[in-house]
This record gives sequence, C-alpha cells and structure tokens, in this order.
Amino acid sequence: MLLPGERIDQLFADDIQIIQSKEVFSFSIDAVLLANFPAFPKTGTIVDLCAGNGAVGLFASRKTKAKITQIELQERLADMGKRSIKLNQLDEQIKMVELDLKKATTVVKPDSADLVLCNPPYFKELPTSQKNPNPHLAIARHEIHTTLSEVIEVSAKLLKTNGRLAMVHRPDRFLDILQAMESANIAPKKVRFVYPKVGKEANTLLIEGIKQGKKDGFRVLPPLFTYDEQNNYLPEMKAMLYGN
Amino acid sequence: MLLPGERIDQLFADDIQIIQSKEVFSFSIDAVLLANFPAFPKTGTIVDLCAGNGAVGLFASRKTKAKITQIELQERLADMGKRSIKLNQLDEQIKMVELDLKKATTVVKPDSADLVLCNPPYFKELPTSQKNPNPHLAIARHEIHTTLSEVIEVSAKLLKTNGRLAMVHRPDRFLDILQAMESANIAPKKVRFVYPKVGKEANTLLIEGIKQGKKDGFRVLPPLFTYDEQNNYLPEMKAMLYGN
Repeated sequence: MLLPGERIDQLFADDIQIIQSKEVFSFSIDAVLLANFPAFPKTGTIVDLCAGNGAVGLFASRKTKAKITQIELQERLADMGKRSIKLNQLDEQIKMVELDLKKATTVVKPDSADLVLCNPPYFKELPTSQKNPNPHLAIARHEIHTTLSEVIEVSAKLLKTNGRLAMVHRPDRFLDILQAMESANIAPKKVRFVYPKVGKEANTLLIEGIKQGKKDGFRVLPPLFTYDEQNNYLPEMKAMLYGN
Repeated sequence: MLLPGERIDQLFADDIQIIQSKEVFSFSIDAVLLANFPAFPKTGTIVDLCAGNGAVGLFASRKTKAKITQIELQERLADMGKRSIKLNQLDEQIKMVELDLKKATTVVKPDSADLVLCNPPYFKELPTSQKNPNPHLAIARHEIHTTLSEVIEVSAKLLKTNGRLAMVHRPDRFLDILQAMESANIAPKKVRFVYPKVGKEANTLLIEGIKQGKKDGFRVLPPLFTYDEQNNYLPEMKAMLYGN
C-alpha cells in the first residue's frame, strides 16, 4: 500500500489515517483549519478543489454525510489520496479525481455543489518568486497551474445558488480574494483570522462566501490563536488536532 | 465657557479636557482607538473629517507637531470643539472649521494632507433605519449628510501622494470601505480588528490606506480586545484611556 518514502500519519481528532510523503506532499495545519471552518451541509455534494493528498476532504467526511468529490491535478498526490480513501474505508463517501480543475464541470455538474472547499496555492507566480526545486511542492504552493481567480471562478460554476465556498489563504491575498469573489458573484459573508500568538499579526485567514448571496452582513468571526506564549497549541487548536 | 447641559470630561491618557453634552454629542471609545491607530507624521498637515466635538484631533495633537484642521458640519458640535481647543490652549496647532466636508478643499489645499483621520457616521441611511430622534445624534451616526464613499473621495482629494487615510468603522461595512478606497485610488494597507472580548466577533475596525499606494502587502494587525471576562478594560485599552 505504501510507496517508497511514504508514511501513514494520523489526525487523531477525526480518527483519519492519511498517506503522506515528505518528498511529495504532507498536509499542513491549514487543511485542519479549513475542515473545521464551514457549517457543513448534512447531505448533498461537496467538492474539494486543489485537494492535494486529500486531507481536507478526509477530515471533512467526519462532519457530514454529503458525497465529497476531490479534484487534484498531480497524479502522484491524487494517487496517495485514493489510497487514503481506501485505508479509511471511505470509498462510499469520497471520490478522488485526478484532473485539472479547469475541467471540474466534467465530473461535477455545474450549479450542483452545496459547498466547495479549497486550500489553494498561496503564492503568486512571479518571475522573482523563489520556488521549491521539488516540482510537487512548487505546484502545491505557487500559482503555476492555476490562480486564485480561476479557483474562485470554477467554484462559482460548481456551486448551486446559495451554495458556499470556504477557503483558507494568507492575509496578504485578502484583497485579491474579495475582488475575485466579487467578479464571480460570490458574496463574502464571513472571515476568521488566525493569529499565531496574542500580539502577532494574522498569518492565515478562513473565508466563506455565498454564490449570488446578498452583499451585506459581512462578519469578522472571533480570532483564532494557534499557540500560547510557551509555543503550546491553545485549546481550540488542540481540539482540532487531537480531539476533546 | 459652558452652555447649559455641557460638562468638561478628561481623557487622562492624553491629558486633554473636552467639552461634551449628552444631548448633543459625547466622544466614544472609537475616537480614542482612532487617535491611537496610525503612525503620525512628525510635522505637516493632518485633517480630521466628521470631527464632531473634536475629540480625535484633540487626542491626536499629543502625538504630533503637525497642524490639524478639523471639519465638522454641525454648528453646535463645531462650537464645542472650538471652545475645547481654547480650553487646552491648542489654538496654535488645531483649527476647527464649521463646514460641509464637500467643501473641504476650500480650507485645505488639495493634495496637501499627510494624514486624514475620520470617524464617520456608521449607519446607512435607509428608509427602514431606526434613527435617534435627536437630530445631532442622528446626523453623527447615520449617513444623512454624507456617505462612506463621499468621505473617502474627499479624503483622496485632500491627501498628497502617499498620504494616508486612517478610519474607524464597523466590520459589516468593511467590504464597502474597501470598494470605496479602490474607487478613490487609496490602497488599503492594514486593518486592525477590535473584538469586545476573547471569543466574540469583531465590533470595530481600524483601517489605513495610502493614496496611490501599491496594491500589495495588505496586513492584518494583532487583534485588540476591549474587555476581559470581568468586563474590565484590558491593558492596551486601559493605557489608551488612562495612560501607563
């Protein structure tokens, strides 16, 4: 079941085992944050875009009975994800598709998704960008094969009216995210900023928008802090990782 | 010096005395937050729009040697502000002008201000808006005589290139603020959210934009909490009110 260099990690909070590889991809804390952010539909259709090795969809499966379609461009990552689905006996609920998200509507009907989850590449692809020499990691982190605008446009196509897009990203792209949502007719409704510690600037944001939603009632949710002064996880973060 | 119903309050942190009246206008904690938010130019020109009884400019005077022009539409409030300037012997530094901000460029040269401060009316003027029957308070709180867009457009006219606009407002208007700044060619650069307590949604935001600034490097500053669990001011808030 495991290829060379792969290992099985466990997210204790959700009792999920996940195949990872340092050389290819390991999920980050951001996947855990995203899988704990939105209010999940009880049933229906969820799409996980830029799915990587499938962490977000795997964790999300514990919070809903909805069917989850995961879309990942990289063959190697999609393959790890497929094996993790089997490992957790989630074949009935989750399907991993190796596909460029530009073609997402060939596997998910347009206007059909209740929720799109996305942990996209964070960094703009600029001539000056310092990229990881490992192409698997570079593609996952930099906008090499897709962009923020494209991810949000594709999400808008997949979502039904009043369906929700939930995304994790970096605060320095916040204005870009809002603009891209505006262009795609997704109304930003709430944001939660994640601060590494009390007294530090936010390093992560979680945002939720509603397709064709009303443009009012924007909310800034309570802040989430990752670590205490001694670099220990704070209770809310700990619960997402290790359970209560 | 005092009219009927007026009293003199003191902001201890800045050693400022300020003439107030429950029936006309009293400064809120938001004025204190705003006066503590931006990096102040050491000298130059500051404009305080929607100045009310002058609280923001009075507090700001302790942090800079820049000349401060305050613009307030309501005669009664501007008059209180003028008397507070005298009371604090700040006539050399601060000038209160009773004026509609639409005409701001008649008293401040266009493209001349280093910093514009603004604590504008927060609430949209809608047919359904419940307004205070007291017209002084209604005008200060509701967009009756000006709007967010207008305030930001006027700020853009007054500011020199790379001059900064610092504003206090409500999170539910955040998207409107960003859009209005974009239209006025003011690049939002940083935001600080103020949360009443740990675990509560933000109820106030402080935002700073730069006229003709670059559209990158947006920062979400460390969160500010107003109260602890026992409803006592937390240290940072306390220092703004009472000093260290």
